[in-house]
Amino acid sequence: MSGKPVTMVRIYLTEGQHQYQQLMSLLHDQEKVAGVTAFRGIAGFGQTGILHSSSLLDMSLDLPIILEFFDAPEKVSGVLDHLNSFIKPGHIVSWSATVNSGE
Amino acid sequence: MSGKPVTMVRIYLTEGQHQYQQLMSLLHDQEKVAGVTAFRGIAGFGQTGILHSSSLLDMSLDLPIILEFFDAPEKVSGVLDHLNSFIKPGHIVSWSATVNSGE
Amino acid sequence: MSGKPVTMVRIYLTEGQHQYQQLMSLLHDQEKVAGVTAFRGIAGFGQTGILHSSSLLDMSLDLPIILEFFDAPEKVSGVLDHLNSFIKPGHIVSWSATVNSGE
Repeated sequence: MSGKPVTMVRIYLTEGQHQYQQLMSLLHDQEKVAGVTAFRGIAGFGQTGILHSSSLLDMSLDLPIILEFFDAPEKVSGVLDHLNSFIKPGHIVSWSATVNSGE
Repeated sequence: MSGKPVTMVRIYLTEGQHQYQQLMSLLHDQEKVAGVTAFRGIAGFGQTGILHSSSLLDMSLDLPIILEFFDAPEKVSGVLDHLNSFIKPGHIVSWSATVNSGE
Repeated sequence: MSGKPVTMVRIYLTEGQHQYQQLMSLLHDQEKVAGVTAFRGIAGFGQTGILHSSSLLDMSLDLPIILEFFDAPEKVSGVLDHLNSFIKPGHIVSWSATVNSGE
């Protein structure tokens, strides 16, 4: 399979931050990345050390939300520069990958 | 920890494509990859630019489905050659990783 | 964006193993990794070849659970050494990535 280089990105948020829909819109409307997927985790902890989980006793919790996207490395580099101004350090991970190009 | 090289793969589909169960079967029965996990996203958009999300108003939506698997690089290379003939360009991402080998 | 190197890790479990909460606690309390997120898959198969899925007929199944975390490479290396003693071969995948450092 032939392929093109991309940079994969995962952004770690929680529901309580009410940030994910705005961020989806920003990535869609302003940054115009090729695609974004949002996932909800079932449990997690971050720099606060506080465990977030979905148990029967605790249905309304601050669950993890992860936004994932990939695009050409130079495109993603610009997007990360913008995101870095309002996403906390330690919450955006990126790495190099290959996407199928159909050629 | 000792480890063996693998190629990680993520395939981006949506529920509306009715493709994911067939693809799971194909990866299981024909390609015989070591394992596959399917995830459902809570929101997403792709090359159409149309946002897919699970809101109260819109329960039956075309949510993102991601298939993830990993196996030896030479094995995955053959699998990707096959997948590339029916998965659209821009929807299969792969990268190099290491798996624990227990040695 | 400036960044720091990290190692990304994904650990593949199933609900039936009743392992994930203990593992979350271990990673939180003992290993003190910077953060962990747990995800539940909607279907999967592993080395047994048995398909696990969430269908209407089969609500109580042994669904996939994935733990994901990242931290400094030297830190993760030590954690993986510990995990390798009780996680089966072929179930921990890791790769190099970059995290936003805010500098």
